[in-house]
Amino acid sequence: MDFQGKKLINSPNDVVTEFIEGLVETYPGFQYLDGFPEVKVVLRADVSSTTYDKVAVISGGGSGHEPAHAGFVGEGMLTAAICGDVFTSPPVDSILAGIRAVTGSMGCLLIVKLFDCVVNYTGDRLNFGLAAEQAKSEGYKVEIVIVGDDCALPPPRGIAGRRGLAGTILVHKIAGAAAAAGLSLAAVAAEAKRASELVGTMGVALSVCTLPGLVTSDRLGPGKMELGLGIHGEPGAAVVDLQHVDVVVSHVLNQILSPETNYVPITRGSRVVLMINGLGATPAMELMIAAGKAVPKLQLEHGLAVDRVYTGSFMTSLDMAGFSISIMKADQAILQRLDAATKAPYWPVGVDGNRPPAKIPVPMPPSRSTKSEESLSRPLQLNQQGRIIEVAIEAAANAIMDLTESLNEWDSKVGDGDCGSTMYRGAVAVLEDMKKYYPLNDAAETVNEIGASVRRVMGGTSGILYNIFFKAAYAQLKANAQSVVTAKQWAEALEASIAAVSKYGGASAGYRTMLDALIPASAALLERLSAGDDPSTAFVLSSEAAMAGAESTKHMQAQAGRSTYVSAENLASIPDPGAMAAASWYRAAALAVKEKCQAS
Amino acid sequence: MDFQGKKLINSPNDVVTEFIEGLVETYPGFQYLDGFPEVKVVLRADVSSTTYDKVAVISGGGSGHEPAHAGFVGEGMLTAAICGDVFTSPPVDSILAGIRAVTGSMGCLLIVKLFDCVVNYTGDRLNFGLAAEQAKSEGYKVEIVIVGDDCALPPPRGIAGRRGLAGTILVHKIAGAAAAAGLSLAAVAAEAKRASELVGTMGVALSVCTLPGLVTSDRLGPGKMELGLGIHGEPGAAVVDLQHVDVVVSHVLNQILSPETNYVPITRGSRVVLMINGLGATPAMELMIAAGKAVPKLQLEHGLAVDRVYTGSFMTSLDMAGFSISIMKADQAILQRLDAATKAPYWPVGVDGNRPPAKIPVPMPPSRSTKSEESLSRPLQLNQQGRIIEVAIEAAANAIMDLTESLNEWDSKVGDGDCGSTMYRGAVAVLEDMKKYYPLNDAAETVNEIGASVRRVMGGTSGILYNIFFKAAYAQLKANAQSVVTAKQWAEALEASIAAVSKYGGASAGYRTMLDALIPASAALLERLSAGDDPSTAFVLSSEAAMAGAESTKHMQAQAGRSTYVSAENLASIPDPGAMAAASWYRAAALAVKEKCQAS
Repeated sequence: MDFQGKKLINSPNDVVTEFIEGLVETYPGFQYLDGFPEVKVVLRADVSSTTYDKVAVISGGGSGHEPAHAGFVGEGMLTAAICGDVFTSPPVDSILAGIRAVTGSMGCLLIVKLFDCVVNYTGDRLNFGLAAEQAKSEGYKVEIVIVGDDCALPPPRGIAGRRGLAGTILVHKIAGAAAAAGLSLAAVAAEAKRASELVGTMGVALSVCTLPGLVTSDRLGPGKMELGLGIHGEPGAAVVDLQHVDVVVSHVLNQILSPETNYVPITRGSRVVLMINGLGATPAMELMIAAGKAVPKLQLEHGLAVDRVYTGSFMTSLDMAGFSISIMKADQAILQRLDAATKAPYWPVGVDGNRPPAKIPVPMPPSRSTKSEESLSRPLQLNQQGRIIEVAIEAAANAIMDLTESLNEWDSKVGDGDCGSTMYRGAVAVLEDMKKYYPLNDAAETVNEIGASVRRVMGGTSGILYNIFFKAAYAQLKANAQSVVTAKQWAEALEASIAAVSKYGGASAGYRTMLDALIPASAALLERLSAGDDPSTAFVLSSEAAMAGAESTKHMQAQAGRSTYVSAENLASIPDPGAMAAASWYRAAALAVKEKCQAS
Repeated sequence: MDFQGKKLINSPNDVVTEFIEGLVETYPGFQYLDGFPEVKVVLRADVSSTTYDKVAVISGGGSGHEPAHAGFVGEGMLTAAICGDVFTSPPVDSILAGIRAVTGSMGCLLIVKLFDCVVNYTGDRLNFGLAAEQAKSEGYKVEIVIVGDDCALPPPRGIAGRRGLAGTILVHKIAGAAAAAGLSLAAVAAEAKRASELVGTMGVALSVCTLPGLVTSDRLGPGKMELGLGIHGEPGAAVVDLQHVDVVVSHVLNQILSPETNYVPITRGSRVVLMINGLGATPAMELMIAAGKAVPKLQLEHGLAVDRVYTGSFMTSLDMAGFSISIMKADQAILQRLDAATKAPYWPVGVDGNRPPAKIPVPMPPSRSTKSEESLSRPLQLNQQGRIIEVAIEAAANAIMDLTESLNEWDSKVGDGDCGSTMYRGAVAVLEDMKKYYPLNDAAETVNEIGASVRRVMGGTSGILYNIFFKAAYAQLKANAQSVVTAKQWAEALEASIAAVSKYGGASAGYRTMLDALIPASAALLERLSAGDDPSTAFVLSSEAAMAGAESTKHMQAQAGRSTYVSAENLASIPDPGAMAAASWYRAAALAVKEKCQAS
């Protein structure tokens, strides 16, 4: 089950040119030199060597590290990015073409990642070096800064060992901001060189990367991770068992900040910036988790002030899963460069600024705090309306309890068989809660409490739909703000409830849901009230429409909810249990209200 | 070899809270509600419900889609993001807490992704709906817009089938910009609703996602991909053989734009915006390749104008490999909202603006174009300097050719055995090219041409280092701009060459390289010239220092280049072949110059 080798590409030979084509389609501020496929250079579209009056900042190297380097082209960061083939240094002629295209009278700075391993000694350093010498001989002012921020390997005997990793992106930003500020080539180069000496990086991978067109290496097995890897698929310092990210982050931070190796001049009390860099296939969630762990460790265990955190995928290794951590010693000068505006699309935004407390209290519900205690307990004395509401609720709940077995039986044929049991739980809770604290003289608040009772015990779709039903009725009743609710207002509340259930549940008439009982009931109620019927009579008549509607669901194909995936034959002659439940409680309530009104 | 299940996390239960902690560490403009772990709400730190005078735009849903939705919080986009557990709708109380925290007098718009599948019917729509009704009953103005942009499944019979996918991000942006512009709640909701009706999305995956703590599904095999998937790991419309991304992009575009299904009101001549969205584990390179293919297809095959391209990972599905494509019908009103400034950190920047021609010509080398033809051919008549240079080159080349076998023999013991053959190729090329076109009367240009000859035939590290050597000498000689080069100027050119080789090659004295011959030679030459020696004598004396230096490499441990990985015992008594070659050609040239000077 090796998914790693799969890529959504065309020919492996074309990945870099096709990447650049997509990049310039996405970012209108980019251009590329028309020397495909050999010359692969991405440029700022607004810079021309004949007029450019700032130091050009140029980087690049082998591809496979996207968005580096081309994604960091833009005002305030790189002026051009020279792209080689995957993990292959770009040829000297491409580098020269890039230098000639963007270098004006102020000269250019080349920023090069050190990559010093046996198989690829003829790398960026030599190719960029030769291009620099050629460009100088053509009259250009050229400086070069070489970055080797790797902290994974033991301190080198000579020049081997330290590789340029994600810390290079911070050097790009600092150099780009210094150039944008109008500094001289010497000053820009000095800032870049200083930055390169202040940053250390170490990576950890869960997978090796797969070169386009090649099969995946099986170097890492299940349950293993690799520490101190490079970004070209070369082996890391050690393969160990996969551990919690907490442990991994601690190990990496300790290695970078080790006083023995002394890779970076960071000591307790230093200010630092942190970069958590995804290696290509690591989701944002995992990068953020690492960032959230690294910051307090740097603060509490290493005694450092963390001024900025950059979390994202900046310098990747194709589709490698894992991340690297970079730590740069910071001061005001460095922060100013890092915070300076840039148009480079992949430089993270929103990282600077004042840091308020991360947590704020959960706000209190305004209604609870204003609602009096009295309104949340059952009144000692019920008024006329309160008594009618009480009998209606009792009758409705009892009807549901009586219907439990039928509901379950119908549901077992068209759904998961628990409609009756779920509704029964709701009915029991309503009866119990009503005795304890429903404010029955206040119709709106009582309706609201019914919703709360139902939600607490019913759960699932029907629980939340009934909660929405009662909540919408409550809002409508409250809007009227009359102590005695008229029949018309009850009818409007029913309309609002149906609209809310339809909106959030996504069903309409004919979808084989509880709405097929309630919609005809609502229509009949409004019609009878308009015709001048006695309210309790209109209510009973509308409940007959509800029953007829529920019965009609026997002939409906399901469109929403539980029965959508049941075939038409299996549904035939079985009513929708939700519709039957709704019609039953509605009808029971109507009959009880009618009886109560006649008795009083 | 199943790498997919591995994640850099702590407990699977804590991934969402730890994600949020990392997010607020990274972005100081964010806060979260202190109701962890139940209430997971990310807010704009600069917004308080008591003072906020714009419509609040709130979204959210299950986690696992990072950076959605919390990464799109920021001025001009979302005011708050409500996060559920992975692929689980947030509870109503969390949504309510978010509404209460940021909703001011202008009200709030909830933007909800439709997610309508059997296992999870009680989803965002119901929970956000109930929260909306509750908030309304508390006095808040609330509107809700539901997005279902999925174009993978057949047009639904009812409400099932269309899911909210990456197109939702575009709706967030449009609503957020409308709110930031000060529009009323009704107007913001109307713009969001219209946007939701203009966008269609379809995805393709190379892998299924792995929920934290669970094993990876084996639904997809090697060499397979899935079309029309959702973003919660549920199966897609079809599993098919992996194809070229060209074919995949065509299929997806045809499906979204199909006139039969009529998902989106886009017809030939429409203006559109395009979003290429990575699903979590897809590198930027592959996303850009898809973008680069989609744009010309939309233009040429579908007759659409592509106004904006958004490429990145916006709405992911944990660590799923693959992408989705969204197409939204655009007009000036929509483009204005999409282009409006936002502080949301994950909204892509640099996407708007004038689109210049993507390609610009590769610039011509300035030196070639200004150099006269005459200077690039061998002069008919050599002057005194030209004759001396000629004999020096001849002697140096012949010395290398004579030494070929010894060089190969030494190199076979300490390197890859081809040092002599490589140097031989260079010597032959120099002799041939000199006869044809070295401008021997011009010392600087001749030195430059030697570098070009060497680079053309030698290749590898030694070729590029010698090219750097001659290029640096050329730049130094040209800087003098004298027709006759003095001995002191030659010495300075040698110094510059050594500095360049050291800088780009990374070696110094004692590293067992050619520099161990050249550095003593340079020092001796400068010393003898300062002492007032005759130049040709000083040159010969310095060549003796070169030979002595080369011999001394027998006792050196390698620090750079070919011999770094050979043990000290194996190196003992073998001189570095590069140093011996350098000393030999240098000494031959010195002796030839001395002889020529005495003869004339």
